[in-house]
Amino acid sequence: MADGDDPGCSRRDLIASAAATTLSATLIAAIGPAEAATLVPENGAPTPTSAETAYPPRPIPARDLPVPTTISPELAAYVAMPYPADWDTIPTDAAGWRAKRDASVTQIAPLLPGLKERLGIRVERDVIAGVPVFVSTPKEIAPRNANRVFVHLHGGAYVLYPGEVGAGEGMLMAAYGRCTVISVDYRMPPDHPFPAALDDAVAVWRALVAAHDPKRMAIFGASAGGGLTLATLLRLKAEGLPLPAAIAPGTPWADLTGAGDSSAANAYVDNVLVSEKSWLPDAARLYAAGRALDDPLISPLFGDFNGFPPAILTSGTRDLLLSNTVRTHRKLRRAGIEAVLQVFEAQSHAQYLMPFVPETEDAFAEITAFLDRHLAV
Amino acid sequence: MADGDDPGCSRRDLIASAAATTLSATLIAAIGPAEAATLVPENGAPTPTSAETAYPPRPIPARDLPVPTTISPELAAYVAMPYPADWDTIPTDAAGWRAKRDASVTQIAPLLPGLKERLGIRVERDVIAGVPVFVSTPKEIAPRNANRVFVHLHGGAYVLYPGEVGAGEGMLMAAYGRCTVISVDYRMPPDHPFPAALDDAVAVWRALVAAHDPKRMAIFGASAGGGLTLATLLRLKAEGLPLPAAIAPGTPWADLTGAGDSSAANAYVDNVLVSEKSWLPDAARLYAAGRALDDPLISPLFGDFNGFPPAILTSGTRDLLLSNTVRTHRKLRRAGIEAVLQVFEAQSHAQYLMPFVPETEDAFAEITAFLDRHLAV
Repeated sequence: MADGDDPGCSRRDLIASAAATTLSATLIAAIGPAEAATLVPENGAPTPTSAETAYPPRPIPARDLPVPTTISPELAAYVAMPYPADWDTIPTDAAGWRAKRDASVTQIAPLLPGLKERLGIRVERDVIAGVPVFVSTPKEIAPRNANRVFVHLHGGAYVLYPGEVGAGEGMLMAAYGRCTVISVDYRMPPDHPFPAALDDAVAVWRALVAAHDPKRMAIFGASAGGGLTLATLLRLKAEGLPLPAAIAPGTPWADLTGAGDSSAANAYVDNVLVSEKSWLPDAARLYAAGRALDDPLISPLFGDFNGFPPAILTSGTRDLLLSNTVRTHRKLRRAGIEAVLQVFEAQSHAQYLMPFVPETEDAFAEITAFLDRHLAV
Repeated sequence: MADGDDPGCSRRDLIASAAATTLSATLIAAIGPAEAATLVPENGAPTPTSAETAYPPRPIPARDLPVPTTISPELAAYVAMPYPADWDTIPTDAAGWRAKRDASVTQIAPLLPGLKERLGIRVERDVIAGVPVFVSTPKEIAPRNANRVFVHLHGGAYVLYPGEVGAGEGMLMAAYGRCTVISVDYRMPPDHPFPAALDDAVAVWRALVAAHDPKRMAIFGASAGGGLTLATLLRLKAEGLPLPAAIAPGTPWADLTGAGDSSAANAYVDNVLVSEKSWLPDAARLYAAGRALDDPLISPLFGDFNGFPPAILTSGTRDLLLSNTVRTHRKLRRAGIEAVLQVFEAQSHAQYLMPFVPETEDAFAEITAFLDRHLAV
């Protein structure tokens, strides 16, 4: 029955019709607290494909969100943090983006010595295939990791954290996984937009697989680093290069178009990215430099995941990119890939990387065990 | 350094101190868009354990939440539904709860014939150990399922869906999994509060394992049925009864105290349960009938999951009980249990059970494959 076919038809009749034909309220029966009438669409006809135009948005009232009691005190301190002061300050020109990038270095660099000391790792700068890298090495490498190579692609929306400050997640992996990590200091906009970062990641990989067994290699990274991990795999496939044995894209920025329900549902709930009214959409356009944002090499969620290696994905319930993560998970699964999802209570975007938090150790225990299971010794 | 120890100490000093000692901004370095200052707690001292009293809540502004473009049209129709008309109508006495229960039957029962026909299953009433059950049988049972038994515990907050209307999820499983499903029509409050439902689930299980190999058996159910699945396992362990080979608790109501971040973060985002201002907390108290809500047999999230069989958990990004689900997942994993998490884009509480939706078939494909992998043939 098409919309408006029978204007005299009551809502109850429409519901009964829908239930008897294309829809039913079983599930309502199984779980819902609702009366059936409110959960069965009024119209049994095929629904439009463009949800945005077909349905009005739901008004969500203002409310107070407490720091929950269901997390560690260490994590609670991060969950309680205010929004970043500059979250909605959007650079308007290349100089503005460079200043933002440089500020990310100035702010983080002084913290690195203490972090490295506490993690018990050393970090050395090197160059592979002309690309600068930072190699994190723990005090003791686990025997099983002696011949393994873990490649790290850092986050920061493709605009932040050049140099050693980008290697933070690599340092955590080196320490928690007792392995050697190579963090790629890829080029970034405004001076080097897409495909520079991808070119650098692929160049490093190409050089590494010439000397190492890819069955003993993994690629990982959070946020833009997770998206870049997936995009790198698409390029490796296209170029016929060997793939890693496993990947760990954390809360991957896999869809730069801004689609994904949590971008709206977790707006102002996430205290790291905050909302799409931030500078993030502008960073996406800066990176794409005129290319379509849904180009699979920019937004790998639109790519073909067939043949990908096993993957472990990590997100949090407050993450603005939770939808990027679960959509990537579902797409991997539909492609028949072994893909594990873990979601941490109350964490905003990539807060599973906060060092010296019990939940972080939990997350890395899962990630390192997963990679260990899939990499050859 | 304790709060207020050095009132002359600048915020920047405190941050530097924190970074050098107990906290660091690696993560910030790795991913965050924020300046370090906003992400590093001001105080390096141990944080309080009671987050609610230690931190002010975050004010979340009102906003509009569109139906996303990232789901099937069939699911979009459910995501677009308004809140249940009676979501915040709270019964005030036993007669009110009975009326609510009876209304759930009146509303759903007429829809069952069409559902069964379209799913191609038949449903028969039986009695096991004195407990009424509904047995769903597909037209064709998969050969691998010939000797397997799938036990279903329905949802409805322990107050809704008595009789055949409670067997809806069992019908879906029978159809999608091509297996025989036994749905337990357990007793419910107000006439039969805790532990009646649990007693009935255990009684049916005890009778079934006397005649069947538990290695060929699974228990599953959504919402209250997921919580009851977990509570049943705690009882089976305590009584020394055999456990099933695998379980599938969907978005389990595993913590009836109302704790869990998504109870607040997804308030008014979830269009099935809506918020904790609903009748749900009252249903919890009605069920507990004076017992502590954190009794592990009422809120199994407080129980000991050691020795549990493999589990697959399912939730949605908008689910008010997303936190119940991910906390259960993490607790299972910490107990060393093989536990798989799947979270579906934009779904509210238990919307993965909506029949004839592509995402529902996707969810059941995962669930049935997982159970198939873990049950003996």
